[in-house]
Amino acid sequence: MKSIYLAGPDVFLPNAVDVGIKKSILCKKYGFKGNYPLDNEIVEYSYPTKRKMGFSISKANQEMIRKSDIVIANLTPFRGPNADVGTVFEVGYACALGKLVVGYSNMTMLHTERVKHGSMINAGHGMDANDMFIEDFDLNENLMIDGGIENSGGFFLTQDVPFCERYTSLVVFEECLKKLQFIA
Amino acid sequence: MKSIYLAGPDVFLPNAVDVGIKKSILCKKYGFKGNYPLDNEIVEYSYPTKRKMGFSISKANQEMIRKSDIVIANLTPFRGPNADVGTVFEVGYACALGKLVVGYSNMTMLHTERVKHGSMINAGHGMDANDMFIEDFDLNENLMIDGGIENSGGFFLTQDVPFCERYTSLVVFEECLKKLQFIA
Repeated sequence: MKSIYLAGPDVFLPNAVDVGIKKSILCKKYGFKGNYPLDNEIVEYSYPTKRKMGFSISKANQEMIRKSDIVIANLTPFRGPNADVGTVFEVGYACALGKLVVGYSNMTMLHTERVKHGSMINAGHGMDANDMFIEDFDLNENLMIDGGIENSGGFFLTQDVPFCERYTSLVVFEECLKKLQFIA
Repeated sequence: MKSIYLAGPDVFLPNAVDVGIKKSILCKKYGFKGNYPLDNEIVEYSYPTKRKMGFSISKANQEMIRKSDIVIANLTPFRGPNADVGTVFEVGYACALGKLVVGYSNMTMLHTERVKHGSMINAGHGMDANDMFIEDFDLNENLMIDGGIENSGGFFLTQDVPFCERYTSLVVFEECLKKLQFIA
């Protein structure tokens, strides 16, 4: 049975553990084993500093990705026009290891439009408020992410869900699993 | 001579090519060879679609990272509280390959504080406006990034520069090179 590392800002949800369980149950339904970051046993009081605890979580997540065959990354825009950077790190990490990487977003708006929405634009010049170019490649995310996923043999699915469910909906996640059945 | 992949949102600056040249000259001053994404020869008219061009740039950058010994990533917050996601992908990619990865930011404020600044906080509960946890590990960025850099044997330097120079200042970048001389 192939295993899937479940990357995403889901770990920041108030019911993060439940979401991991739900995602793992869905994985099983389609013949996969889900590996969720919060499955790593990190015991808070065993670290002398918050930094060391952070480093330890990072290392455990890296190891979990290495042990997994596939990554499904929740790339729904988070705290700005782009995906969660922790998730993006994991996508890059998995791509370098030759894992099959799948991305999904609960929002269909493309990257360029999202950046434009979030910035005061220097009208007509394709620059943002910091006078920096807004890349336009008809992609869902920064080209390193869409390109990495494509190059890994994976795919990037997007669909709009009700706004208040954008961090909790598992509809698009399940679509990824359905599609993965036939290629993984 | 060891080579350094120069990752960062610098490629979006209006004078992106000049910045790459300046960074490469600084690399040489400290005994390194700089590899800058825009050194890749991408000929715009040879791609049928913008998407295919994006994928091609992504692949060329991945190959350039593989050929480099070290990555110095400009992780100055970009279009929100976090670093540029393209750069973060590259940091993850390089960490998985066992490269020495160094990060820098032209802003010293830690990750948790930046997210709080950018969010309406649900007071007292450590949650952001989307009711999601704001992680607090005394780190410069999401723990995957600081942890990945630490685990690679690298370091993360931050320093405040004048606000209008936060995407162009090379002061902290040069500090990274000075420090790298002794460990790489």
